[in-house]
Amino acid sequence: MSLTLYGYWRSSASYRLRIALNLKGVAFEQKPVDLRTGAQRDPDFRTFQPQGFVPALVDETGALIQSPAILEWIDETWPDPAFLPGNARERARLRAYAAVIGCDIHPIQNLSVLQYIKAELDADQTAVQAWARHWITNGLTALETMAAQDDRGGPFLWGKAPTMADIYLVPQMYNARRFGVDMEALPRLVAADDAARAHPAFEAAAPENQPDAPEDGH
Amino acid sequence: MSLTLYGYWRSSASYRLRIALNLKGVAFEQKPVDLRTGAQRDPDFRTFQPQGFVPALVDETGALIQSPAILEWIDETWPDPAFLPGNARERARLRAYAAVIGCDIHPIQNLSVLQYIKAELDADQTAVQAWARHWITNGLTALETMAAQDDRGGPFLWGKAPTMADIYLVPQMYNARRFGVDMEALPRLVAADDAARAHPAFEAAAPENQPDAPEDGH
Repeated sequence: MSLTLYGYWRSSASYRLRIALNLKGVAFEQKPVDLRTGAQRDPDFRTFQPQGFVPALVDETGALIQSPAILEWIDETWPDPAFLPGNARERARLRAYAAVIGCDIHPIQNLSVLQYIKAELDADQTAVQAWARHWITNGLTALETMAAQDDRGGPFLWGKAPTMADIYLVPQMYNARRFGVDMEALPRLVAADDAARAHPAFEAAAPENQPDAPEDGH
Repeated sequence: MSLTLYGYWRSSASYRLRIALNLKGVAFEQKPVDLRTGAQRDPDFRTFQPQGFVPALVDETGALIQSPAILEWIDETWPDPAFLPGNARERARLRAYAAVIGCDIHPIQNLSVLQYIKAELDADQTAVQAWARHWITNGLTALETMAAQDDRGGPFLWGKAPTMADIYLVPQMYNARRFGVDMEALPRLVAADDAARAHPAFEAAAPENQPDAPEDGH
């Protein structure tokens, strides 16, 4: 199978897929889609991603879209190492971590929403930053509580090995830092994020290490 | 197993779980959480749902949260009828339908976000409605394209039987009507939604048929 990831260096959802493929040891090619120039709205790209969002993962059979769906597909296609626990109840708990970030934080602080509040609701740069910080802080604070309830001794968010939870956490913490979220109240998440970022699969997936990242990393 | 659903009659994510449990023929009790009075912020409720969101599904073992995670758990626990196809690639495609709604539409038009744009960004009622319509229209338009690409002959969104896609679609179409989204350009979604709402599992789950719905259904 020959995999091509259409993504963007700083896109959270692209970052998740890079981590996931690296964890499975699956090789992939990257085709950067430059969100700053609107390349995601190109009609050719939209034939396989009608929302005009990155990422898309393309192989000989066609395109897969939506990172939550693709992550499950990656885990089903290359089962080792597993992203989810073997027990249905624990899987549900772990998928709840993913959903807190994937549904209730990330889409609300995503580029298209920030552009709308600027253009349509006259939000200035301060209000835009406050918006992003608000939703990220709310979601991560809940996740910090969940991590305390589930305490598995670290170093990763769900114990000794990286899981689906870390795949979502690390890109969201990257955004949290970008928007100046106060990390003091999130010690468990900070520790798990630090541990994960030191892992080679996560390091190779980091935004600043991607071919389309600007030289200064910003 | 004795199941209690903490939800709200008009909450999309609660509606999804009601449909899912009905499709599996699983009995559950309902405990309404009145979002209008802020009951979701009650400290007792937040011990098992730290975000202060509905729904939560509680049994003898504890609470499950986040509808995307709970829907997968329901499908794993009661495999028949299956919510997802047997083939990994088709599962990925179907889960993409769920994610378009569950990540990119619903959270952005959810109550807490609408309250924020009103309170913090001075959006008036017209701007709030336009906001909700914008995100719902964007997402459903992409979904309409996906449904045309995947055409499986109906009557449901993914062919002859209800699937995870319909479980997400029907509550989102309910919201689309509430916010006055133009349905003319969404014929496939309208047809699938009509078919699903005529199914007894969906009908019993409809907001207006819940114990906490006001008598006039609004």
